[in-house]
Amino acid sequence: MPTLVLLRHGQSQWNLENRFTGWVDVNLTSEGEAQATRGGELIKAEGIEIDKAFTSVLTRAIRTCNLALEAAGQSFVPVVKDWRLNERHYGGLTGLDKAETAAKHGEDQVKIWRRSYDVPPPPLESGSAYDFKGDRRYAGADLPDTESLKTTLDRVMPFWTGDIVPALKAGDTVLVAAHGNSIRAVLKSLFDLSEEAILEVEVPTGNPLVVKLDDNLKPVSAKYLDTARANPLPTIG
Amino acid sequence: MPTLVLLRHGQSQWNLENRFTGWVDVNLTSEGEAQATRGGELIKAEGIEIDKAFTSVLTRAIRTCNLALEAAGQSFVPVVKDWRLNERHYGGLTGLDKAETAAKHGEDQVKIWRRSYDVPPPPLESGSAYDFKGDRRYAGADLPDTESLKTTLDRVMPFWTGDIVPALKAGDTVLVAAHGNSIRAVLKSLFDLSEEAILEVEVPTGNPLVVKLDDNLKPVSAKYLDTARANPLPTIG
Repeated sequence: MPTLVLLRHGQSQWNLENRFTGWVDVNLTSEGEAQATRGGELIKAEGIEIDKAFTSVLTRAIRTCNLALEAAGQSFVPVVKDWRLNERHYGGLTGLDKAETAAKHGEDQVKIWRRSYDVPPPPLESGSAYDFKGDRRYAGADLPDTESLKTTLDRVMPFWTGDIVPALKAGDTVLVAAHGNSIRAVLKSLFDLSEEAILEVEVPTGNPLVVKLDDNLKPVSAKYLDTARANPLPTIG
Repeated sequence: MPTLVLLRHGQSQWNLENRFTGWVDVNLTSEGEAQATRGGELIKAEGIEIDKAFTSVLTRAIRTCNLALEAAGQSFVPVVKDWRLNERHYGGLTGLDKAETAAKHGEDQVKIWRRSYDVPPPPLESGSAYDFKGDRRYAGADLPDTESLKTTLDRVMPFWTGDIVPALKAGDTVLVAAHGNSIRAVLKSLFDLSEEAILEVEVPTGNPLVVKLDDNLKPVSAKYLDTARANPLPTIG
């Protein structure tokens, strides 16, 4: 039975500071490291044996993946890193905290960017401190300069279909250690959620979400391993 | 110019206890973690940008690889894990410390196993606490039950030729985070060393050895980044 374990990265420094992070490569806090390790311990306690892991090219997700695999005693598992699992790119909001964003753009506009499915923030200005175009980890990629949730999903899906689905179809147990919005992309597809419904789904950090699938990759069951920190899940079937 | 960075894993718990480790999956000590991190800091300070990394399926090498890449700010680099980069398999000596081995087999015999090129220790007994045949990380592999330095090299070489050499030929900067004897295999081939000469080469733990290569993968220069802990290197040219 194919099994998918979704793991949102542990708390990062900018989660703590409430800043739009997106593609900025901030590290985990020590609390975030502990969450990742705890996630791995729960995977081990559940008797889950990962066959293949996928993560983004952002340090906070990669370290979450590594720390969880270490804590599970499964460091030897192959890990694929791909930018298409990155967090949503917040464009011109990148680096701003809540207060700065509201002061610059107004509360109402910020709500629209946060809560709409397909309205992207203004693009990141070329040459800004957060311009990722010169970063060698993205060499050869056709990079966005801002993303809505919709366009985030549009670039996650080819990686999901082309790389993760084949592993699941082969019956593998797959770990995806990624970000709030790239995990939303996977959940929207798996559970066939509407644009409105996916906006309501909040995956907690460092809490493995285990989805058992049938041979057609339809969800049969879904549960968080840390039940004390579980959020509501999409209905199955 | 192709560049190869060889990094022997940091101190492990059994290095400390002076026990034959081989394929037993012991973890790094905190000193070993610090060595790996320091190795990554030196790679960063040298301005080296890794394109691809290779490591074994043993936790101490994988964590050394991960810690070094993190410290270098290069966690996003693809990492390939393969059992053919494992440490030499010490067969029936696995788990014994120096005193136990001498008591069981005699000092002279132990010297032969340690210092000969092609004499393997007795095989690991099937069903021993250290039998690796049921370990899923080796599924499908044709595993040895003991190894001499020669047979260690014999299984490293196909991986070197088939997987690492193509990356170097493409001009990549390659990190190999591995073990004393799998790194010896690479050095013997690169520097065309005799069986006697390779036995004399001791690579220090956690000290990046940077080898610059010409287009035919002949060494042009070789140096340790931590010069205070550098051992003698093979002559070049």
